[in-house]
Amino acid sequence: MSALARKAAENLKKIRDSKPLIHNITNFVVMDITANVLLACGASPVMAHADNEVEEMVDLAGALVLNIGTLTDIWLITMIKAGRRASILGKPIVLDPVGAGATSLRTNAAKAILFQTWVSVVRGNASEILALSGQDGATKGVDATLSVADAGKEAIWLARELGTTLAITGATDLVTDGRRTLMVEGGHRLMPYVTGTGCSASALIGAFLSVNNDPLTATASALAYFGVAGEIAGARATGPGTFAIHLLDALYSLQPDELEARCRITPG
Amino acid sequence: MSALARKAAENLKKIRDSKPLIHNITNFVVMDITANVLLACGASPVMAHADNEVEEMVDLAGALVLNIGTLTDIWLITMIKAGRRASILGKPIVLDPVGAGATSLRTNAAKAILFQTWVSVVRGNASEILALSGQDGATKGVDATLSVADAGKEAIWLARELGTTLAITGATDLVTDGRRTLMVEGGHRLMPYVTGTGCSASALIGAFLSVNNDPLTATASALAYFGVAGEIAGARATGPGTFAIHLLDALYSLQPDELEARCRITPG
Amino acid sequence: MSALARKAAENLKKIRDSKPLIHNITNFVVMDITANVLLACGASPVMAHADNEVEEMVDLAGALVLNIGTLTDIWLITMIKAGRRASILGKPIVLDPVGAGATSLRTNAAKAILFQTWVSVVRGNASEILALSGQDGATKGVDATLSVADAGKEAIWLARELGTTLAITGATDLVTDGRRTLMVEGGHRLMPYVTGTGCSASALIGAFLSVNNDPLTATASALAYFGVAGEIAGARATGPGTFAIHLLDALYSLQPDELEARCRITPG
Repeated sequence: MSALARKAAENLKKIRDSKPLIHNITNFVVMDITANVLLACGASPVMAHADNEVEEMVDLAGALVLNIGTLTDIWLITMIKAGRRASILGKPIVLDPVGAGATSLRTNAAKAILFQTWVSVVRGNASEILALSGQDGATKGVDATLSVADAGKEAIWLARELGTTLAITGATDLVTDGRRTLMVEGGHRLMPYVTGTGCSASALIGAFLSVNNDPLTATASALAYFGVAGEIAGARATGPGTFAIHLLDALYSLQPDELEARCRITPG
Repeated sequence: MSALARKAAENLKKIRDSKPLIHNITNFVVMDITANVLLACGASPVMAHADNEVEEMVDLAGALVLNIGTLTDIWLITMIKAGRRASILGKPIVLDPVGAGATSLRTNAAKAILFQTWVSVVRGNASEILALSGQDGATKGVDATLSVADAGKEAIWLARELGTTLAITGATDLVTDGRRTLMVEGGHRLMPYVTGTGCSASALIGAFLSVNNDPLTATASALAYFGVAGEIAGARATGPGTFAIHLLDALYSLQPDELEARCRITPG
Repeated sequence: MSALARKAAENLKKIRDSKPLIHNITNFVVMDITANVLLACGASPVMAHADNEVEEMVDLAGALVLNIGTLTDIWLITMIKAGRRASILGKPIVLDPVGAGATSLRTNAAKAILFQTWVSVVRGNASEILALSGQDGATKGVDATLSVADAGKEAIWLARELGTTLAITGATDLVTDGRRTLMVEGGHRLMPYVTGTGCSASALIGAFLSVNNDPLTATASALAYFGVAGEIAGARATGPGTFAIHLLDALYSLQPDELEARCRITPG
């Protein structure tokens, strides 16, 4: 599928050329790595969650990323406020439903955002994504416990029901808009041992959406880019500490042509 | 004391096998490193502080870790709410009294948590621990200024008074439940130059408590594990930046048998 | 200007000897790196933002650093409370106006802090600094878009108008109190690809102000120290991940005499 690989490379080049501002309302744990991943990609991250600031920031942004880890009601309200503004302006929104299925606050918050704003892409592990359908995905905290393959079929139906693109990430990533499905290979076994890698992938999807208005290929491109960088980092790492550092180096150093040559996106 | 070393190795193996969920209500500065330390150990970290979520999260968790850095009244209230739930369920609670003795908010908060919940272990530097007794430990911010040895005797009495296990960490760590006392060697002189190493040690104690219901040996095991990893990291580091990274690698790579061979826990 | 280089070296030595407590009320994204940068320098960082704690913490601190990233109204109120206490006590205040010019919340907050407290030094990029004068610096999020040279002349007038010292950082740094101007060379092209480097520079200025009551030379010293460490880190880095780690190592390892030999501060 060289057309998909070429698309990924083009998207990366556009991000590096235009340095889109990506507005994140995300959890406290991952703010640092999320900002660093976006910078390494070539985007311009900003974190802002004040009720009296989020709309102005959305106006400046190329995409909005909402992440419900370390959530409270007040943060949820501003997420929805920001999301409504982005919806009106037609700016892409990514939702990362961290811990959906684990507690009612998280599950309900993810659904509230989905129902009250126009979310372009939801990225999570299998449990988190399936929690959005009312299915019990046996979420244990923020961990993935279901395989991507098992969750794939249900995700296609769920994407249609929710009218959004879903990305289930794991050893292999699955992206579906309910009509088309793509599989993305890449990454490394150390990735789940670094906090915020999933959340950072969601933020990268935001960056790719800001330069590519097709959620399916934008999402697959972002995940392929992250996956190739993960492979490069994995080859240099001696554990999760060095892995995280080399991941940032690899995201920064990876050029569009190398991404095109190495990325593995296939129809699902 | 090979029995204590064997216990540490067994605990580590149990964590890797069961991947316990450790619920942290902790300060903003150290959330990232705390999550990464728990992941490297093999545990499954979650951070959640919403009033309408903490009880549900405690229900899922193997241990609760309360840390009063960057505290506000609202966070204190949810800490106590979470702690009461854990107390009712008999789940272990670790308290990290960051900055107790430095300000009245911190000192009073640490005491409030101790009096209103059933804390299994308190870990801090000598000043912070002695601040819990009303003794003036001359705390300067969040720094240790008293030696562990000086504080040891008082800590034994304080552990009895508070009915909890106390861990004073420094060049040598001291753990006492008021009846038994253990000393733990290990670590590295660069450790105090990395923010969050103490807080991460507290989180590790939570992980070890979730698989070992004896607070004394669970705490000594966690500190010995952290200490050995610190020695390994120190041998590879050229400063605090590389030290932190290699610490995560070492925590991840350290196997139970190597921990048993290298850990130094002795009766105090 | 060997006198300025010698001053920088003396300041660094004083920080290492006295380990001043630096009180930060800063944004969530950069708390970790800010604390680590201060520790590497030899200072003692504390983060505290509770309404009922900040005054007590200011009493203990050698300097107060206010940073308006991830701001909300409640945080602004406690920043001003802390700032007023520091002003009364004559303790130095550093303001980092992150994102001033991007949103009205940030611009107004920076001005409110300037008008209601006695700020010793404001450090930002050219856009952020010029936003304080009502000039439109075309701020895009938290990025610099104006050159330091272009902004220099205006900054001199603005420093007089505001009665404070201004530091505009970029490829070359400019520091002016409206009467005297210094230029500082150093740093590395990877620095803007690591989140929190600017915010950490502001925190370092706080540390240097706590041992040197001349804002102009204290600020130039801090920026020269940060710049030399950046050069050392850049020579070792293969991307922004390794750069950040080596920056901490370099800040820690850099000795006063080497700083004196390498730092490049010149009259502007």
